[in-house]
Parts: sequence; C-alpha cells; structure tokens
Amino acid sequence: MIDPGVFEESERTLPDATGRLYVQVGAMNLERSGQLPDVKLAYQTWGQPDPGRAILVCHAISGDSNATAWWPRLVGPGKAIDTDHWWVICSNVLGGCQGSTGPQDGTFPFITIGDMVEAQSRLMDHLGIPEWQLVCGGSMGGMQAIEWARRFPERTNLVWATASALRHSAMQIGFNEVARQAIMRDPRWQGGNYTDRGPTDGLSVARMLGHLTYLSEPAFEAKFGRRLQEGETEVPEARATFAKREVFQVENYLAHQGHKFTERFDARTFIVVSNAIDTYDCAELPRSKARFLFTSFTSDLLYPSWQSQAAHELALASGHDSTWVDIVSPLGHDAFLLDEVRQAAAVQAFLGE
Amino acid sequence: MIDPGVFEESERTLPDATGRLYVQVGAMNLERSGQLPDVKLAYQTWGQPDPGRAILVCHAISGDSNATAWWPRLVGPGKAIDTDHWWVICSNVLGGCQGSTGPQDGTFPFITIGDMVEAQSRLMDHLGIPEWQLVCGGSMGGMQAIEWARRFPERTNLVWATASALRHSAMQIGFNEVARQAIMRDPRWQGGNYTDRGPTDGLSVARMLGHLTYLSEPAFEAKFGRRLQEGETEVPEARATFAKREVFQVENYLAHQGHKFTERFDARTFIVVSNAIDTYDCAELPRSKARFLFTSFTSDLLYPSWQSQAAHELALASGHDSTWVDIVSPLGHDAFLLDEVRQAAAVQAFLGE
Repeated sequence: MIDPGVFEESERTLPDATGRLYVQVGAMNLERSGQLPDVKLAYQTWGQPDPGRAILVCHAISGDSNATAWWPRLVGPGKAIDTDHWWVICSNVLGGCQGSTGPQDGTFPFITIGDMVEAQSRLMDHLGIPEWQLVCGGSMGGMQAIEWARRFPERTNLVWATASALRHSAMQIGFNEVARQAIMRDPRWQGGNYTDRGPTDGLSVARMLGHLTYLSEPAFEAKFGRRLQEGETEVPEARATFAKREVFQVENYLAHQGHKFTERFDARTFIVVSNAIDTYDCAELPRSKARFLFTSFTSDLLYPSWQSQAAHELALASGHDSTWVDIVSPLGHDAFLLDEVRQAAAVQAFLGE
Repeated sequence: MIDPGVFEESERTLPDATGRLYVQVGAMNLERSGQLPDVKLAYQTWGQPDPGRAILVCHAISGDSNATAWWPRLVGPGKAIDTDHWWVICSNVLGGCQGSTGPQDGTFPFITIGDMVEAQSRLMDHLGIPEWQLVCGGSMGGMQAIEWARRFPERTNLVWATASALRHSAMQIGFNEVARQAIMRDPRWQGGNYTDRGPTDGLSVARMLGHLTYLSEPAFEAKFGRRLQEGETEVPEARATFAKREVFQVENYLAHQGHKFTERFDARTFIVVSNAIDTYDCAELPRSKARFLFTSFTSDLLYPSWQSQAAHELALASGHDSTWVDIVSPLGHDAFLLDEVRQAAAVQAFLGE
C-alpha cells in the first residue's frame, strides 16, 4: 500500500534561494573540447565548517544547491546526512540555471559530468577541504558521485549513488531525446537564442514526460487512478471546441508540473545537462581507498535496479569495498527523494562503518 | 537473446492502399453526445466471401484497414488467421484518417470505442454477416474486440484481445496526454483547423514517445545500445551550434519514426482516437456464448500483463469460457505485432477448439 501523503514532497516545489553563496573558480578547459573563461558556482552549506568532516551532495537534472529543500528526508539536523554532525556542501552544477555558469546567454560548449566534477573540485579547494568524507547524489547526482571516485580517487572517501547508473541505456537516452525534441521543436527555442521566457510549451511537455518516468504504475494508480478533475483545469485545449472532453486528474497533475517547471528552469540548461548525462560512460574505477554504496528501487522505471548492480560489480571488480541495496518500493524513481526509511538506514550504516 | 531481424517489421511501414473498399453506413447517434450525419468506412477483405466464416480484425491507434500489411505474421494465407480458410475483414476505425469518416475537416465530436464498434456493426450488416466467428485485435484493437462482446454478445463468437486492457491506467492516460500536448502546443495545431500538413513537429514528438513505450529496455539495448549514428542524421539541431554533439542511433531511429509518421497520419485523428482509448472502461460483460482469449507479453511496458489477467478474470466472473496466456517475450508492447510463434499457437488452439 502507498501512503498518499508521501507524494506531497514529490511536487518539487520552488527552492528557497536564501543562503546561496557564489565563488569564481576561474577558466576551465573542458573534457571534450573548448573552454569556459570564467566559471562561477552557486553553492550552499549546512553545519559547522570543518574541512575534516565535509560531505558533498550532488543534485539531479532539475535540482539546485538547496539540498535541504529537495532532499529534506535525507539531509538536515538529525537526518541520515546529519547537518548537526557534518559540514554539508551542495553546488548548482556547471551548466545549471540556478546561479552557476550556464548557457543562459544563448551559447554554450558541450560539457560533461566530468566537467561538473572538475568545477566542484575547485569549490572544494576554495573551501580548504582536502577530501570528502562522503560524495553522494541520486540520478545525475549519482553519476557525479561515481565520477568523483574515478577522477579524484584520493579526495573521495565514501561514495553513495542512489537510483543512478554508470551510463545511460538506449531507452534512457530515448526519453531524454524526446524531451529535447519537444523543447527544440518549439518555435520559441530559436536555436537557444531567446531573451524572453523561451520555449515554455516544449519545456512543459519535456517535464510532463519526466514526471511520467519518475513515478511507477502503482504510484500513479494510488495517486490518481481514473479520477476526473472537477472544476478548473490547467490542461490547455481540453475543453476547447475540438475534441472537447473531461479531464483526468493525472492529466491536470502533469500540466501543473509542466507549467511550474517553466517558472523556475531554463530549457537551455535542460539541453546542456541532459546531453552530459546521456554521454556519461564510466567503464572503469581506479583502485583507491574509496568505499561504495549503491541503492536502487525495485519499481524504478528510469534507472532500473540492474544498473546499480552493474555499478556495484564494477566497484568490486576494481578492488573496492562496495554494498548494493535494492530497496523494495512502489514509488518508482522518485523513491530516491521520497524514501527516508530504508535509504536512510543504508546510508547511516555506511557512514557509521 | 533477441534476434535483431525481428525488428524489421516493427518499422510500421506505409501500408499498400490497394484493395481498399468503402461503404456509407448512414447517420450515427454517438454514445456520449452528438451525431454524425453520414458515416463512411474504408475496409478490406481477404479470403473467399462466406458470411458463416467471417473474422473481424481491429486495428490499433496508428493502424488502418490493411491488416495483412501491419499484422503479416498473424493474418494471411497459412497464418494463424488463415485467409485461405476464413473471410477476414478489417476496417479503418470511425475517427481514423485512412479512408473512414474522421476529423479531417477540423471539427469532430467526441467518439468512443463503442461508436467505432457500432460503425463496424453496420459494415457487418452491409456484408450480410450474422455473427463473427472471431473478433480480434491488439492494443486499441483489443478494446474493440472486448467492446464487441459487451455491445453485441449474440453476434460475437470468439474474442481475442492481445496486449490490451479493459481500461487505461493513470500512467497510460499520462503517456497519451503527453503526446496530445506535444501536438496541441505546436503552433501549427491551430485548434485543429489547419489545411496544410499541420502540427508535424508535435506529431513527430508524440510518435517518438509512442515508440519508446512500444519496445522494452532489453529490446532497445539489443537494437541500439549506445552506438553512435555515423554520417547523416535525421535529428534536428543535434549538430547545430548550440550544444553541438554526436547522435546516438536510438535518437536517429526515433526521429525517423516521428518524421515517417507525419507523412501518413493526421494529428486530429491522434487526438480523437486517443481520447476514445483513455475514456474506454469496460466494467462488465453480459453473459453470452462468447469465449475469450487474452494474450499479454511479460515485457510490455504500456499494457502490462496484469491488465490482460484482469480482463480474463472479468470474462470468467461473467460466466464465460476464457483463457489467458502470458507470453514470455523481451519485445515489449510491439510483441503483439512481432511474435508469430507463441501468439499464433494460442490463437490456432483457440480457433480450433
């Protein structure tokens, strides 16, 4: 049974931007090609500054530096990632649209997950942190955590990747590509050179598709079933002359999520960051002191459990301590944001070892 | 292991329109509301005309009357639905865009699966067929087959629904709604009142999403993996200045499928017919002589096996003979088009009983 209350925090509300800090981390030569002359990162910290007790939290495609807002069940005072005990850092990724250097002037080079991690390492230097006690994240955040162990093995102690993968499958690339095409085929995309709000219809459709892949069939059934939307609806055209009809609650939910996303997110960042995700491919991990924890969720359609198993097996084959916990959950991919019980237990055990 | 050759016929090529016949079936009062003054159906037949040996084949959302083109592994001489033995009829549905009355003049009432079946019953009268020996179809075609047993129990002998359901789940409605929004948010949609090719970008995106849900993750891995597209690509913008990048084969495949669909299909029909699918809800079956066969495929993401099981249980609970065969296949929803071995065996046994 799914407790309907669990979904309230999956609405992914606008983060509170209070407390955002900024650092210039200089010029970057990019992994693929090209360079960025002057990179800025937005970041936030929680807990007593202590370079010997620092944890890096990495966000997913639509996230930002406000980790306690989008991961309240895992990060905070008394939580598994306890801000009363650790110095917790989270930065908006390179390419993002929440304060860090990104494609908002309408042009941007191809960046990689490795470039995101390189930029984070300069923030780490700026803060005087020699090594992370833990690098963690879900989905794209998990790819960053894995990339930390690949790129900076001596600065990475524990690695926790949840609902993530070493690389995208063809189907995951396909879902991202449908979202990209929804954006780029919107006439207001203008090749990325817009100065207004840009391709909000395409970005809405992209986000609607995203939300379909974030939950699971039983979660959608529990949350909406076939119930109809009474009264006002946010679904465009549904009650217009052509094909006039009733509206299902799930349709209204998707329209609402799509619209809300356009008020806080830039389509160019979606293109740049989803390209980085799709091209990420971690084939090996250098032998190091790093220990790994992988968690997955049995109903995750987007990052199925076998991908965490494969990452766990790569870590073991590379000579690392590694644990993989496949958590039985009906909540789909969003379980990494919503589950505070079994995920938290796994992380607490991992941090306590 | 998946034989790559199996995918060739999933490309859903343009049907050969040769042999299409037409019949005017008169005015229709529609199930929900409104009427259509003068309905025309396009249909095709195979085999020796014999009203005592007639089979109705019902097509899915993007199909047409040319059943031997889109279901060549199941329908034809010597196939499970043997056109040397049966008189096989298939009509383009009411609301379609392949010869039957549809929304191509830019306005159309809300129609239902029941309305589609009512129109087919008039074709049946026209052909002098007292009862169908078998009504069958996959996906939306399976809903029509079920509706035949609900609406015309005395004219329906055997019913076979494959990869189908009694009703759409919230998630299935969600996938259709993302596709509809991709279409209706294309500025060339114009409320359905276009006279040119219409919202081809939106329709392409809708079809790309469709193809993602028609296969399964292992099928996409077998067919594409992470292989890159060499040379020309059909993916718009991928190699433009903004976020210039390589193209994965899966992306090119989706772009190709999307584009090809716009050359043979009208976006208005997609809206009208997907609305009919989403609102279909068969809660009971009248007791009758009808016998049922339900087939499903273990890797079908779009119409999961439990939906066929639920239909089977409704048929049993309504006092019918019913069989449900859950076929182990890695081919996803498209398995209903691609599997000719286990599906055929189940149908042959069913027809031979």
